[in-house]
Amino acid sequence: MAKSKYEYVRTFEFEDRCLQNCWIVVRLDGRSFHRFTSSHKFEKPNDKRALELMNRSAAAVMEEFRDVSLAYGQSDEYSFILRKNTDLYNRRQSKIMSAINSIFSASYVYYWNTFFEDKKLLYPPSFDARIVLYPTDQNLRDYLSWRQADTHINNLYNTAFWGLISMKGLSNNEAEKVLSGTVSSEKNEILFKECGTNYNNELPIYRKGTVLVRKLVNLPPSKSKKHVICPLHVDIIGDSFWEEYNEILNLKDLILNKNFKPDDIFYLVKRS
Amino acid sequence: MAKSKYEYVRTFEFEDRCLQNCWIVVRLDGRSFHRFTSSHKFEKPNDKRALELMNRSAAAVMEEFRDVSLAYGQSDEYSFILRKNTDLYNRRQSKIMSAINSIFSASYVYYWNTFFEDKKLLYPPSFDARIVLYPTDQNLRDYLSWRQADTHINNLYNTAFWGLISMKGLSNNEAEKVLSGTVSSEKNEILFKECGTNYNNELPIYRKGTVLVRKLVNLPPSKSKKHVICPLHVDIIGDSFWEEYNEILNLKDLILNKNFKPDDIFYLVKRS
Amino acid sequence: MAKSKYEYVRTFEFEDRCLQNCWIVVRLDGRSFHRFTSSHKFEKPNDKRALELMNRSAAAVMEEFRDVSLAYGQSDEYSFILRKNTDLYNRRQSKIMSAINSIFSASYVYYWNTFFEDKKLLYPPSFDARIVLYPTDQNLRDYLSWRQADTHINNLYNTAFWGLISMKGLSNNEAEKVLSGTVSSEKNEILFKECGTNYNNELPIYRKGTVLVRKLVNLPPSKSKKHVICPLHVDIIGDSFWEEYNEILNLKDLILNKNFKPDDIFYLVKRS
Amino acid sequence: MAKSKYEYVRTFEFEDRCLQNCWIVVRLDGRSFHRFTSSHKFEKPNDKRALELMNRSAAAVMEEFRDVSLAYGQSDEYSFILRKNTDLYNRRQSKIMSAINSIFSASYVYYWNTFFEDKKLLYPPSFDARIVLYPTDQNLRDYLSWRQADTHINNLYNTAFWGLISMKGLSNNEAEKVLSGTVSSEKNEILFKECGTNYNNELPIYRKGTVLVRKLVNLPPSKSKKHVICPLHVDIIGDSFWEEYNEILNLKDLILNKNFKPDDIFYLVKRS
Repeated sequence: MAKSKYEYVRTFEFEDRCLQNCWIVVRLDGRSFHRFTSSHKFEKPNDKRALELMNRSAAAVMEEFRDVSLAYGQSDEYSFILRKNTDLYNRRQSKIMSAINSIFSASYVYYWNTFFEDKKLLYPPSFDARIVLYPTDQNLRDYLSWRQADTHINNLYNTAFWGLISMKGLSNNEAEKVLSGTVSSEKNEILFKECGTNYNNELPIYRKGTVLVRKLVNLPPSKSKKHVICPLHVDIIGDSFWEEYNEILNLKDLILNKNFKPDDIFYLVKRS
Repeated sequence: MAKSKYEYVRTFEFEDRCLQNCWIVVRLDGRSFHRFTSSHKFEKPNDKRALELMNRSAAAVMEEFRDVSLAYGQSDEYSFILRKNTDLYNRRQSKIMSAINSIFSASYVYYWNTFFEDKKLLYPPSFDARIVLYPTDQNLRDYLSWRQADTHINNLYNTAFWGLISMKGLSNNEAEKVLSGTVSSEKNEILFKECGTNYNNELPIYRKGTVLVRKLVNLPPSKSKKHVICPLHVDIIGDSFWEEYNEILNLKDLILNKNFKPDDIFYLVKRS
Repeated sequence: MAKSKYEYVRTFEFEDRCLQNCWIVVRLDGRSFHRFTSSHKFEKPNDKRALELMNRSAAAVMEEFRDVSLAYGQSDEYSFILRKNTDLYNRRQSKIMSAINSIFSASYVYYWNTFFEDKKLLYPPSFDARIVLYPTDQNLRDYLSWRQADTHINNLYNTAFWGLISMKGLSNNEAEKVLSGTVSSEKNEILFKECGTNYNNELPIYRKGTVLVRKLVNLPPSKSKKHVICPLHVDIIGDSFWEEYNEILNLKDLILNKNFKPDDIFYLVKRS
Repeated sequence: MAKSKYEYVRTFEFEDRCLQNCWIVVRLDGRSFHRFTSSHKFEKPNDKRALELMNRSAAAVMEEFRDVSLAYGQSDEYSFILRKNTDLYNRRQSKIMSAINSIFSASYVYYWNTFFEDKKLLYPPSFDARIVLYPTDQNLRDYLSWRQADTHINNLYNTAFWGLISMKGLSNNEAEKVLSGTVSSEKNEILFKECGTNYNNELPIYRKGTVLVRKLVNLPPSKSKKHVICPLHVDIIGDSFWEEYNEILNLKDLILNKNFKPDDIFYLVKRS
């Protein structure tokens, strides 16, 4: 079609390809979620439905992009890991980052009613995104360990903080003062003694966050192989997760997963 | 709060600040909108409600970011212009681009029902984003002229193409053949002779796209000054638009706009 | 010619083009020149021959690259200004920066003997380089003003410092203490009263640094037009320099310069 | 010291840090060396003194930067490998690249007379530079294999080409035609049959290029440990080189090298 004399402005665009052979991580973070969670009266310290909505939105990203081999979420953030050999959008940073962020953001609004049937969405929330490259498998695992360790640190604090408020009737300031300077074992102790809560009995989704993995499974009744995305709430810092899902770091194709129980929660990838 | 030994992975993040004293343009494009528009049976060649939904979503971006001084949209794309002296997010590209894209994407789903009361959103659409810098006012105007010239070129073609199909009963292939190699004046001629359509009578929103500008106005009954965002469907290639809205290129504050009629369509900026 | 299977490593190279329509500045700085100047017993506070060697090396850069329209040097640094519309090396940063730096560094060693006939070069000196973009003429002028203001600030201080040492017999520490916290007028006063030196009588090359400009001139006896590079020691902060050499900011071709006196110092561009 | 109002222009500089945990390769290439070699009548197809001058200049770079753990050169190009964990200049690309290029360029001129006692340097040569990142050891080895395979391909061709000209009296065009489309074994055959040359008897420096490695050695008579840089002309594509110099990929300190014979050519690192 005809071109205008203004076309020259395209030459101002710049290339922003990710370095080859590096893991690509896209992390989304809720923008102004302090205000969003209080406007929508999310439960404290964790709102299970809100976390499940995050997971559903993240699954929508994985349904769209096969090269996102794993995702990890906690609170109002989600990290997406692209295979180090991906050629998605010629590895252009802005394309990869913006597409993932847009699918996630639109899905969060789209699926809101599925998880909050009784609660109206008052305004559209939003997320910002960043992209980071990790050259080695160890760097990637350390990135994910960093996020999961962060989940633990924040959730233990928040559980103790809200426990002191809701069960002991402390004010925010008083709760803050009690916890100030305490180490993990002390927070566990406070939770147990003051609130009667054994932290280890808290829901895994709160303590561990959610890791989304891909599985190839038999889904009754059809018995044909299906590609699904499963939310797990397990440790990803130690080796055992990485041994069980060794295809991720090894860049291998999925093989039939025989441990899959169709009663598990999962998201079916339609266009597999 | 405590930090883990994995914290070092943060050093892999990189700085991506926009060069100072350049206009920053963020352009969003609908991803796979061919499929999206046909799934949702958008009207051809233009769906007025869909365009208004785009405009509403873009206004949501402008409500959030004061430094977006103008936005221009057509079809499934929208460009946002940030003041050349903006310090939003320290001019970090990924932050600026992802926040704008996320607000727009979430708003598109959120406001869907406002514009398509009778039509269910079948799945969440998404947009990709890019960021481009323009050093001079002329470069910026040429960018916007490029997009509006593109609107004209595409819309004239599409209007003639769908006119030949709907009014003359041609097949897609036949219509394509008739228009192949024609210049603008010939397409105008075909439209007029074959379809009885005077292209200049087509709606300005189709022919010119939409430019969103900010205004400071008196809104009855309160008479207090309010900050609003107004959709215009005017030429932005010539000088007159830029003279009327000279505060944009001059980086000036808004002054009270006395030509504003409260019957105009506008979006009220709540937190002005 | 044949290619090896290792060729894929080329895909790891990245594009680093300078934004269009911006002035490109490459600034070189002497590496470890404190050690270099003391090893080679440069005169304090200024060594005229060393400055002339810097100028000669910078002229070599301008002889090679027509799009370097101006250069400014002081002490052990030199800035090269490339026309904002240059297409040199497709505006690739690393190519532009490294070629300029290499020509300058090699020339500095090559021309050493021309300026220091009696002094042996003990080891090869080196320079680092950076590249900076300036979108507007005002930004560019401010950059050059910054460097010339720096020349003034440093040279006034150094002249007073070394004057107190050489003429008044102060130690380094004593001289430092005398000058500590003084403003320009006070340093001028100290120089005049203590050392009998009127700072304004210092050589312009010391007070103003050197700006290299291009001229098109008649060189006797041939009378044919020649392209030369002339070192000036003039103010470049005010407007008059930019009016006289208006072709620089206006991106114009050189016109015959009738004020040129063949007795002036100049470098002939051979391949004009 | 005082600052001027123009200081703001510094904010236009941008950060250009190399991604952490990647091998950093800086490759220099002679600019217009076709002209340079013919002006200086370098021997064809290889000029041994010119190669030794390249090696000497590269050694100067390694003397300066401890984190350059290996360098590889051929013809008019040289690659410098920085340890993947280097923190040199905070991994800033422009600093690393420009410093290496400047030292090399200045050294080439400085040491010219050492290698070409009877030949005057007619003008200063120059080199351009680029920087490339390699995330894994394998990528790095493949990069070096690429360069050494290139050495082989070029040198075999050039040896045959100049052999046909100097020994068989062919013209450039005729020699080119004879070699056109031949594979390696055919070029070997032509060399042997037509020129009586067994390619494998050509000097290793021509066939393999030069790899510069660091060694810690006993240098008589002092017997104290000295840090030296040794030029080798060996295969670096296979594993044996990397096993012998395993400290390079393993980022280990040097241990005393007992195979070193002081008669070998080496460059002593003074400031070890």
